[in-house]
Amino acid sequence: MKILLKLEYDGAGFGGWQRQKNAESVQGVLEKAISELVGENIALVASGRTDAGVHALGQCAHFSMKKEFDAKRLPLAINARLPQTIRVLDAAIVPEEFSARYDVKKKTYLYKLYARKISSPTRDGRYAHVPYELDFDSMVRAAKLFVGKHNFKGFCSQGSSAQTFEREIYSLDVSHDGDEFFFKITGNGFLYNMVRRIVGALVEVGKGMLDEKGIKLALEDFSHPHITKNMPACGLYLYDVVYA
Amino acid sequence: MKILLKLEYDGAGFGGWQRQKNAESVQGVLEKAISELVGENIALVASGRTDAGVHALGQCAHFSMKKEFDAKRLPLAINARLPQTIRVLDAAIVPEEFSARYDVKKKTYLYKLYARKISSPTRDGRYAHVPYELDFDSMVRAAKLFVGKHNFKGFCSQGSSAQTFEREIYSLDVSHDGDEFFFKITGNGFLYNMVRRIVGALVEVGKGMLDEKGIKLALEDFSHPHITKNMPACGLYLYDVVYA
Repeated sequence: MKILLKLEYDGAGFGGWQRQKNAESVQGVLEKAISELVGENIALVASGRTDAGVHALGQCAHFSMKKEFDAKRLPLAINARLPQTIRVLDAAIVPEEFSARYDVKKKTYLYKLYARKISSPTRDGRYAHVPYELDFDSMVRAAKLFVGKHNFKGFCSQGSSAQTFEREIYSLDVSHDGDEFFFKITGNGFLYNMVRRIVGALVEVGKGMLDEKGIKLALEDFSHPHITKNMPACGLYLYDVVYA
Repeated sequence: MKILLKLEYDGAGFGGWQRQKNAESVQGVLEKAISELVGENIALVASGRTDAGVHALGQCAHFSMKKEFDAKRLPLAINARLPQTIRVLDAAIVPEEFSARYDVKKKTYLYKLYARKISSPTRDGRYAHVPYELDFDSMVRAAKLFVGKHNFKGFCSQGSSAQTFEREIYSLDVSHDGDEFFFKITGNGFLYNMVRRIVGALVEVGKGMLDEKGIKLALEDFSHPHITKNMPACGLYLYDVVYA
């Protein structure tokens, strides 16, 4: 049987989703817990990797096993074997041909930051810190430029294994509450560090260091050097994965 | 000169505000950092203690020193000597007769919790977890009962050194966003664990285990055993202290 899990995790203590030699990974911890529970070695396939320090509110991953198991009982049974930093929120039986990786229709990421001079101990680790004031209205206007089909090569870090750089962004909403800013971005797929670089560009706009013309240029002429820095991992959450 | 500091801290790693033998305290860490900076041993007097694990967004504390120091430069200079878990947000010179403890006019606490069956790794430590659904409307109605002057002996843990149990609550606002609930309570003073026990009572109301009659009884006949349990420290924030 094939099982699809919905997962939440605090990425702070992990070297990312993917199993690796020199750091504890979310995948490694989960595979060990599930394998011990079901009594056979299982392998997880996620919707995509998350980098070191990146959180997830709704990561999805599938695994196959020979034994039969009541899917409804799985979250509680797996959670009992996990550290508090990872939780299985839901489990469902899916058809054998289903893939948590290849059947993704859209993904949503949330980026959380606070903007003030002095860092905030009660938000560190779960928000990024920007030590400048940000102009909300100009970020809202600039965010609209990313919506649609674009070549995002200018918003992709080196080391990407992507074959093509065209992606479609369905929505990019910017909201704020006091000194906190939230960026919610939905698309059909994301390149390596793409969300963190888009938010980085919008932060530059909010600081008045970049204008809409600069963003348009980066979306059209992606041969020039990156216009934005990569934002910290601690503000990024894989929010939701949609299959259909 | 006498200096009043405004402080934010993540209480998770501390045995509370107060200097003590067997655990690191916020007061102890701050006094050491400031004493080293100004070159004389200073002692801090806070608006009140916070318990182990309790956070602060706007704790206030004063200290006196013989040397003169530019108050505007103090936050940056002290912060450079502090762990990331404590931050001085502001510093101001106050009159010699001012006391951060005895001149408090009102205090505001914020309590944050999320209500769902499975715990949330990305909120643990900064929210309390209630594994039940809560009825928002009944909590809002019940919250009104606490506003005004009452004898809060029924909402005070043993070990309090208070001489009287009458306190005045100016406001108690309950709000929510999805599965998150926020309780903001302002009063002229609070007994030991009083905020956590009031929120505990409201959570019982939200679960349907306690009604308004039960709360009225606890506010009038405080000789009977506590009707509510103490909520966890990790959801509590000293939000603001007002002097006038």
